[in-house]
Amino acid sequence: MSLIVQKYGGTSVGSIERIKAVAERVAGTRKRGEQVAVVVSAMAGETNRLLKLATELSDSPNQRESDCLVATGEQVTSALLALRLEALGCPAVSFLGFQLRIATDSNHGRARIKSIESERARNELNKGRVVVVAGFQGVDSAGDITTLGRGASDLTAVALAAALKADACEIYTDVDGVYTADPNICPKARKLARISYDEMLEMAGLGAKVLQIRSVELAQRYGVPLVVRSSFNETEGTLVGKEDKSMEDVLVSGVTLDQNQSKVTIVGVEDAPGLAARIFGPIADAGIVVDMIIQNASEYGHTDMTFTVGRDDLRRALEVIERIAKEISASGVRHEDQVAKVSIVGLGMRTHAGVAARMFSVLAAERINIQMISTSEIKVSVVVDSKYGELAMRTLHDAFLENGAGAVRA
Amino acid sequence: MSLIVQKYGGTSVGSIERIKAVAERVAGTRKRGEQVAVVVSAMAGETNRLLKLATELSDSPNQRESDCLVATGEQVTSALLALRLEALGCPAVSFLGFQLRIATDSNHGRARIKSIESERARNELNKGRVVVVAGFQGVDSAGDITTLGRGASDLTAVALAAALKADACEIYTDVDGVYTADPNICPKARKLARISYDEMLEMAGLGAKVLQIRSVELAQRYGVPLVVRSSFNETEGTLVGKEDKSMEDVLVSGVTLDQNQSKVTIVGVEDAPGLAARIFGPIADAGIVVDMIIQNASEYGHTDMTFTVGRDDLRRALEVIERIAKEISASGVRHEDQVAKVSIVGLGMRTHAGVAARMFSVLAAERINIQMISTSEIKVSVVVDSKYGELAMRTLHDAFLENGAGAVRA
Repeated sequence: MSLIVQKYGGTSVGSIERIKAVAERVAGTRKRGEQVAVVVSAMAGETNRLLKLATELSDSPNQRESDCLVATGEQVTSALLALRLEALGCPAVSFLGFQLRIATDSNHGRARIKSIESERARNELNKGRVVVVAGFQGVDSAGDITTLGRGASDLTAVALAAALKADACEIYTDVDGVYTADPNICPKARKLARISYDEMLEMAGLGAKVLQIRSVELAQRYGVPLVVRSSFNETEGTLVGKEDKSMEDVLVSGVTLDQNQSKVTIVGVEDAPGLAARIFGPIADAGIVVDMIIQNASEYGHTDMTFTVGRDDLRRALEVIERIAKEISASGVRHEDQVAKVSIVGLGMRTHAGVAARMFSVLAAERINIQMISTSEIKVSVVVDSKYGELAMRTLHDAFLENGAGAVRA
Repeated sequence: MSLIVQKYGGTSVGSIERIKAVAERVAGTRKRGEQVAVVVSAMAGETNRLLKLATELSDSPNQRESDCLVATGEQVTSALLALRLEALGCPAVSFLGFQLRIATDSNHGRARIKSIESERARNELNKGRVVVVAGFQGVDSAGDITTLGRGASDLTAVALAAALKADACEIYTDVDGVYTADPNICPKARKLARISYDEMLEMAGLGAKVLQIRSVELAQRYGVPLVVRSSFNETEGTLVGKEDKSMEDVLVSGVTLDQNQSKVTIVGVEDAPGLAARIFGPIADAGIVVDMIIQNASEYGHTDMTFTVGRDDLRRALEVIERIAKEISASGVRHEDQVAKVSIVGLGMRTHAGVAARMFSVLAAERINIQMISTSEIKVSVVVDSKYGELAMRTLHDAFLENGAGAVRA
């Protein structure tokens, strides 16, 4: 008998009718003889509704109380799903974070899971019950409720699958699986049957929203096979797993687009040792995540330093940078909030040269100017003017992925 | 420094604006130098909203899951109130049932509190924080969430006051205090300044809805002074406490009306030892609470047996009784679902004779027929036709309570 962890996101449990459909699916899996543990998100819109109540009462709501508040969203869904399963004659029991001792640190709003006591869940599974777990929440050493950050019900599911040594972790969502590109932008995007953890990590980091990046990391660390599939149909999804030889035959697995980028340049900085630390130390202290960094070569002892940050962080980043620019006597600060990052990802890049060059020439043929470039072992990212973002994505998808164009063998 | 437990009901925290007002009041109490622990109900309508979701998914929702579901109502309110207090600069921390170890038995939906670990709350109070507690909920020995029954946030408040040895437990609600009768029915009803636990218990048991009966019992057992007052104004409320000599001077403290009654009669039963047990044993086994019981005297070896049950239980009671009637060869079963119970309550009855007789003559003067009579040391109840219920209440209020008429000294 195999053990499956299934995770259903907010849209999958967004109404009474959808909860009924999820219960049918779970009961069906159970009936086929599998042991099933289910992790659920809050009903779509519920977390925002709760946070709105909080912000009506406080400009900066206390984080401990905020966590206690929003954790009710998943509590409601898990109880509803369990009682629906019971009504269908499928024995079920729900658990909250504190009940499974999903132990986290005390960083409210973005806590990290330290351990899960899987014994109680295991006992219930062995009694033939479906175990329903409220996602997104844990409990710290003081017994306070914590939450794991937006989209973190995926993380609960993967951590639970790891703790239970489950055979697979199925992530049910409102799309069929992982696509070669966002189908809303690239009509020709194809669903991938398989993708490696490394590629999925790059794609998640680059703006593909289907899986939360921390949950892919965790799945990779514990070797949990992830399946991304739709809760609205029976289509087979995408398996995210360990790479195998055949995967390297594919040059490019996907193209991603992140329109939520902005760019900051400090102009005319004296090029001296310790400069980067002087600039990026305070940015990190402010809790701002910097993505790409470019330092132009300098001939005359002065340089320009350019980096990208998420658009939401731009204002705060500028406040820090304006101050530092004065301290280090830079000649000025420029910024650009209408930029996009377009990336291609694929294991095949490790073994095949020339992928980046081909990417640049494809973009040049469309007269799209490249502002910044960043590469890793299995991805190439470029920053372009925001208005060319979608065009760049479609063009790269056509070039690398259309009609199997991306496969080296083709 | 005294310690006050304040409890705010669903209408008092029924909107963002009202939660703000409650926070102001709590912060004001704290500012005057009192230690404050607050118990909150779910926002008005929320418990019903959640239960409706459950009944849409199941005809008889699993009780354990139902408890987990509805407990979120109080969780939301307690977090919102705590974060509002923090926003006002009044340090506060919220606790759920499991966090304060409000230990209960496992009777989901109507669990009984066994103990409260008050140490964590006490520590926070000593640090100057307001402690906000989610009412209505506890946790059983398995770590499952339980709820204490409708209106049981009062019970949480009293139990917390007892555990903390609080100086008073203030119950804030949408009325000014305990009235001599329901002001919606008796325009001349007056607010009582004081009332004894025993009188309050009778009144709560007889249909006065201002306080939940179990919380009054608990307050009496632990000697917790209860104050019932409005959260919408600063009017002094009603103190429910130990009786003192002066209270016995008042013949009648209040008149109550319970319109939710029905009456069942088993006709022509052979009058033999064990008859009552034969009839009421199965009724009790079915979980039906019987209120008044009358057995008519019999001359010919046969008797009629009449009892009242809540109207909601009538159908189930009849099922049981029809079956028993056959077994004991009764000649028939009659029932009446349109009856009301009207009662007068007062400590003075203990020491003054003739109160019941006066009650009967007052009703006779209005030509209201009395169908059943039941008395205790400090109350007299009569069952009348439902359509005369309000008239009976007003008439009795006029006779015993108008212009101090109820006071023996008057």
